[in-house]
Amino acid sequence: MQNGKFITLEGIDGAGKSTHLAWLEDYLCSKGVKVVVTREPGGTAVGEQLRALLLDQRHTMHAETEALLMFAARREHLDKIILPAIQRGDWVVSDRFSDASFAYQGCGRGVAWEKLVLLEQWVQEDFYPDLTVYIDVPVMLGRERVNSVKAADRFESETDAFFDRVRTGYLERVRQFPQRMQILDGSLPLDEVRAALAGVMEHFWLNQALHEK
Amino acid sequence: MQNGKFITLEGIDGAGKSTHLAWLEDYLCSKGVKVVVTREPGGTAVGEQLRALLLDQRHTMHAETEALLMFAARREHLDKIILPAIQRGDWVVSDRFSDASFAYQGCGRGVAWEKLVLLEQWVQEDFYPDLTVYIDVPVMLGRERVNSVKAADRFESETDAFFDRVRTGYLERVRQFPQRMQILDGSLPLDEVRAALAGVMEHFWLNQALHEK
Ligand SMILES: Nc1ncnc2c1ncn2[C@@H]1O[C@H](COP(=O)(O)OP(=O)(O)OP(=O)(O)O)[C@@H](O)[C@H]1O
Ligand SMILES: Nc1ncnc2c1ncn2[C@@H]1O[C@H](COP(=O)(O)OP(=O)(O)OP(=O)(O)O)[C@@H](O)[C@H]1O
Ligand SMILES: [Mg+2]
Ligand SMILES: [Mg+2]
Repeated sequence: MQNGKFITLEGIDGAGKSTHLAWLEDYLCSKGVKVVVTREPGGTAVGEQLRALLLDQRHTMHAETEALLMFAARREHLDKIILPAIQRGDWVVSDRFSDASFAYQGCGRGVAWEKLVLLEQWVQEDFYPDLTVYIDVPVMLGRERVNSVKAADRFESETDAFFDRVRTGYLERVRQFPQRMQILDGSLPLDEVRAALAGVMEHFWLNQALHEK
Repeated sequence: MQNGKFITLEGIDGAGKSTHLAWLEDYLCSKGVKVVVTREPGGTAVGEQLRALLLDQRHTMHAETEALLMFAARREHLDKIILPAIQRGDWVVSDRFSDASFAYQGCGRGVAWEKLVLLEQWVQEDFYPDLTVYIDVPVMLGRERVNSVKAADRFESETDAFFDRVRTGYLERVRQFPQRMQILDGSLPLDEVRAALAGVMEHFWLNQALHEK
């Protein structure tokens, strides 16, 4: 039996991850694969408890504590959701994964990049997403989009300077993983971003089919 | 200003940690030092939330998730309680610290020893307790003592085989850190264990005084 694939969506708040994730789920279903949609932090019982702790405005914590909690939630997510699904042939699409830890805890909060590399190896060994779509938007635009939707959590209430660093972190990851990570310009109108995503997915799909032959 | 010292108490459930910790606090107060008493997992707002998650019977989690959460709580504990106290000259006495992660998550749950060494370095760098008192008791004796006191949590409800491995883990740490770690025979009558602890503390105290000259 063929293993499933693991696809992640990344980007700052308001980039359009949730919006495009819904489309991506439909797209994959139309290709006849079973899709598991999940998110980080969260996705498991323990992970959702950690999500609540991490996003709660009332808690302050050391940046390294935050990084360890993100990777603890990820370890559980891999064990309970991601790896079992892939092994039974399903495709998994996750709203955020490790690249977010480099962007948010690394560049955003200042945890040393090398220390995050160590944690990533500790938790994932050589496991990476098969494809990561990073939706890039200017900080102001992302903020405008989410402000109109809901109340801010512990991350969303951060400064523009914080999100500028987060964006730099994402771009650094794209630079380091040019094969795995595809960047989309999320400032374009929705249908244009979707068209670009459709192009990325068709390419990925054809490539998969080719390698399975 | 002289830095304070960091002392930890270790041992399986029912070894007598809480009992001797109370005595230790009195002892140190009588020497004129300010004492901060704390515990792991816990000791901070975030840490106590993690403690609840870790001890809750209803949660199962991957052994590596458990290890990451223990070290996340520890990172916070160091940042908010232990290091500030030591820096202002107080002495800190903690009911459990990293040795417990090697014993419980390592030997007990099977997380690779080397992976715990990596996490310990990640979180503590070169910071270790100045003194660790490990109270050694046979598993059956520890169990008899706690069974009579309270309801079992997610660790306490483990098998005898689990606690035998935990004890082996502690003994391995004592073998690796013969200077820092002092072993007491916790199966002796309470006043004899206390006398042995008093001996260890007098020795430690005199040594400190000597080095400060
Ligand atoms: N390219 C776009 N053009 C215009 N509006 C967009 C575009 N992409 C997303 N939006 C809108 O912006 C808002 C935020 O989008 P979405 O919730 O998908 O972002 P997100 O990346 O999931 O954010 P969060 O990280 O906060 O969950 C939504 O109202 C969505 O319809
Ligand atoms: N040497 C001893 N002889 C007899 N009884 C003892 C001895 N040491 C401890 N006890 C008793 O055993 C019980 C458990 O001791 P204590 O609570 O100090 O253990 P602990 O190591 O803190 O356990 P836990 O990890 O469950 O908190 C208490 O009732 C205590 O009085
Ligand atoms: Mg979203
Ligand atoms: Mg106790």
